[in-house]
Amino acid sequence: MRRWNGWGEEATVMELPAQGAAFLAGRIGAGRALADASLDSVLAQVPASRLPAHPLLSTDAETRVRHARGQSLADWLAMREGNFGVFPDGVAFPETVAQIRELLAWAAAQDVIVIAYGGGTSVAGHINPQAGGKPVLTLSLARMNRLLDLDEQSRLATFGPGANGPQVESQLRAHGYTLGHFPQSWELSTLGGWVASRSSGQQSLRYGRIEQLFAGGTLETFAGPLELPTFPASAAGPDLREVVLGSEGRFGVISAVKVRVSQLAEDERFYAVFLPSWPRALEAIRELAQARVPLSMLRLSNAIETETQLALAGHPGQIALLEKYLALRGASAGKCMLTFGVTGNRVQNAASLKQAKRLLKGHGGVFTGTLLGKKWAAGRFRFPYLRETLWQAGYVVDTLETATDWCNVDPLLDRIEASLRDGLVDEGERVHVFTHLSHVYGEGSSIYTTYVFRPAAGYGATLERWRRLKHAASRVIADNRGTISHQHGVGRDHAPYLPAEKGERGMAVLQTLAEHFDTERRLNPGVLLQE
Amino acid sequence: MRRWNGWGEEATVMELPAQGAAFLAGRIGAGRALADASLDSVLAQVPASRLPAHPLLSTDAETRVRHARGQSLADWLAMREGNFGVFPDGVAFPETVAQIRELLAWAAAQDVIVIAYGGGTSVAGHINPQAGGKPVLTLSLARMNRLLDLDEQSRLATFGPGANGPQVESQLRAHGYTLGHFPQSWELSTLGGWVASRSSGQQSLRYGRIEQLFAGGTLETFAGPLELPTFPASAAGPDLREVVLGSEGRFGVISAVKVRVSQLAEDERFYAVFLPSWPRALEAIRELAQARVPLSMLRLSNAIETETQLALAGHPGQIALLEKYLALRGASAGKCMLTFGVTGNRVQNAASLKQAKRLLKGHGGVFTGTLLGKKWAAGRFRFPYLRETLWQAGYVVDTLETATDWCNVDPLLDRIEASLRDGLVDEGERVHVFTHLSHVYGEGSSIYTTYVFRPAAGYGATLERWRRLKHAASRVIADNRGTISHQHGVGRDHAPYLPAEKGERGMAVLQTLAEHFDTERRLNPGVLLQE
Repeated sequence: MRRWNGWGEEATVMELPAQGAAFLAGRIGAGRALADASLDSVLAQVPASRLPAHPLLSTDAETRVRHARGQSLADWLAMREGNFGVFPDGVAFPETVAQIRELLAWAAAQDVIVIAYGGGTSVAGHINPQAGGKPVLTLSLARMNRLLDLDEQSRLATFGPGANGPQVESQLRAHGYTLGHFPQSWELSTLGGWVASRSSGQQSLRYGRIEQLFAGGTLETFAGPLELPTFPASAAGPDLREVVLGSEGRFGVISAVKVRVSQLAEDERFYAVFLPSWPRALEAIRELAQARVPLSMLRLSNAIETETQLALAGHPGQIALLEKYLALRGASAGKCMLTFGVTGNRVQNAASLKQAKRLLKGHGGVFTGTLLGKKWAAGRFRFPYLRETLWQAGYVVDTLETATDWCNVDPLLDRIEASLRDGLVDEGERVHVFTHLSHVYGEGSSIYTTYVFRPAAGYGATLERWRRLKHAASRVIADNRGTISHQHGVGRDHAPYLPAEKGERGMAVLQTLAEHFDTERRLNPGVLLQE
Repeated sequence: MRRWNGWGEEATVMELPAQGAAFLAGRIGAGRALADASLDSVLAQVPASRLPAHPLLSTDAETRVRHARGQSLADWLAMREGNFGVFPDGVAFPETVAQIRELLAWAAAQDVIVIAYGGGTSVAGHINPQAGGKPVLTLSLARMNRLLDLDEQSRLATFGPGANGPQVESQLRAHGYTLGHFPQSWELSTLGGWVASRSSGQQSLRYGRIEQLFAGGTLETFAGPLELPTFPASAAGPDLREVVLGSEGRFGVISAVKVRVSQLAEDERFYAVFLPSWPRALEAIRELAQARVPLSMLRLSNAIETETQLALAGHPGQIALLEKYLALRGASAGKCMLTFGVTGNRVQNAASLKQAKRLLKGHGGVFTGTLLGKKWAAGRFRFPYLRETLWQAGYVVDTLETATDWCNVDPLLDRIEASLRDGLVDEGERVHVFTHLSHVYGEGSSIYTTYVFRPAAGYGATLERWRRLKHAASRVIADNRGTISHQHGVGRDHAPYLPAEKGERGMAVLQTLAEHFDTERRLNPGVLLQE
């Protein structure tokens, strides 16, 4: 059963080893747990639905609770406290495109707000109903999850928009293909959600971001369907796929997605290398990206993240041995762990590895083989479960991310970390902050920062701590040439920072598009645009 | 001096060897040349300018003649006949962004149509002034051609929009970089034009299309400037670069372009391979693309193009020897020539070559080494000069192109070729038609078809022949899941076929954007949208 008040399956539990807890206590003090609300107490709060009846509609309280919130930290605190605020008035589960159209027509006739819902994994407030006079219909695409067509010659697969990561991959794997899109939310997030929020997967270095994988499909809008035919490339005017990508349910509901798939690779390996210092590590991965070495993933942890990962890994004896070995080879205090992958045919992978090794050794890299790489691959989707684990131990964890050009990566990273690390000084609280770069491009890199802090005495004050930290870091990003999101999207949480990068004219273009598709502001108002 | 009535430099002349002329005569009959008009006779036709005076404006007749037409076949016939139709009322040559803004403000105040002009190389009627009540200002960006900034760490170069291919590459080369964008029009076409028309270069397999190279910049619009900041990637809503890409001067004037550049490669080679038949060749390049073998270019000529190229190459003795060698190895009648390149470091290039060789040999490919590849590289920008050569010999040549998914490449190619080959049957005229695929993707390929026919007795009837051929092939493309352009853009010539792929809703979105940026329809009306 999926957790109603947190991430993932109830059966999946990530352990916090004793030395991990000690490490955190040393950094920011002993944990302090807040009490969780029960599902029953939340169910009791759900008000009567304001929606008229419809055969596709479910208005039972638990369904409405389970579709009320995403996975942002604000959502988390609301769920744990049992203070949901607003619930959708009902949830519909269409099974066909015709039913989506029927529901949209019904929503227009009944003057209802419509929120498209994929896996409910948004960390930016994409799917939260807002208080207001109009009833809210959450439109879950969960039942439209099938592989509808596979063109093996063109390597194009057509899916229902609600297929989640495992559903996408298992249906493709049966034919020998993969989409290769593996965001950390992969177990729950959906294809339609990836498109709507411009998602990026862990192996985007090989397979591309969802922008490169999304070949076409259909957006259902109040102005009628926008059909996007598939072409390998086109010079026929502006690319309207790029209007649907990132539209976040504000312009329409994605009803079908055609994606570019790849044959399952002959060979795939992940390696871990330790670089002696951050500046050398940064230089190395920039060179790897700019030399176009055909790697399939790359993740560079800064020194604090490296230290934290080793502390939280358990197996202190093995870690001590590893650290001794690394120190002998020149990677001791300040070392940075780099994980990278090669995926493809064996000839190519050997060549890629040779290029990567040569370049990394030139920067003092110490190879440790595939053991830590395998560990990374085995746990690649487990990180979101850590929030539950740390919560039980009395800590709050959140992440935020951006991307910027290489010339700005280090300065921006420093500023983001500083804004978080010092963000609760006035309350006498420390914040443990660490960062990795996991999507690298010739032009620059993503910056993915994790921060851990202690809850305040109550939920309200804890939410306020988070708000201050999130705002401080978001302001730093917006004011310093970072994008407000590299892979999570805008939603409601990032909307205030969007004008900094889109500019006055760009915001006006987005507003014009929203009005074009949805004159009455019924589709997920408040995402993207602060309206 | 650049030709006023044709392609490129007057000093550059491509020869037609005797056996090439004989080959064409055998295919479609002896050539029949039409008489060219003189520049003087055209200058005499230029009417008085309807524009008020402006210090940045040139209204002299020759300048107006030289900015009146692009390089479509309709343009060519108009120029050779001296029947230009409409001339711009004046040409401005701004040197700064401020001057562009000043000119736009002036155009708004004077109610003047503005046509942004890069290299004047459009083959789709992008820059032709139309008859109408309002005066027409052609805004040439030719003087804004400098490298303004180079961020070596982020590999970002900022250029004025009017930098043409040689200006872009020579300024980058001085620092050890390349843009790697080499469309066939490279000698004359400009960076701003590439962005505005979604250009693709011969080595897009390595460097990407202009969509991937265009990192940001500024579009000057009547509604104010649209600034596009640079990010390596972003999930912050719809990507507005993709609205500027392909905007064809209809939404605004591109005033600065930031592009992603690459270090000059250590090693680059081009190889020629002959495949025994078209079906095997097609299969081979699809597999190369889908296996992601890191090649930098790939061009597969069908059997008729292969035969035509060998006939037009001159050196019949050498060609005979080559054909004998190929026949011995199994590539005789029906053989198809594949040219491909590897670009990068030597380790990678060796691995790429190994993979390509193994795969191609599995499809019966006969390698001929780098000689023909070198020949291709040396003549890579010379093909447009062939129109002049053939014209003198009494033939008309034009090309058209599309892209489609792999499952549709062969059927569409057949239909396009048939529509052209049989297009003048009722006049008793034959058309020589051949095709290559030069931009391959996992999903599909471009299709680039050349057709040669004889002029009619006069210019009017010759233009009508072309119109019929062009329309027939364009209709086939639009009706059979091809994009109306893979690399040339829409302009006025392809606008009637655009709704077939954008759909009713898509066209409405483009119309909405045009109205947003340019409420008074002053910016290049008639391109993209048939208004």
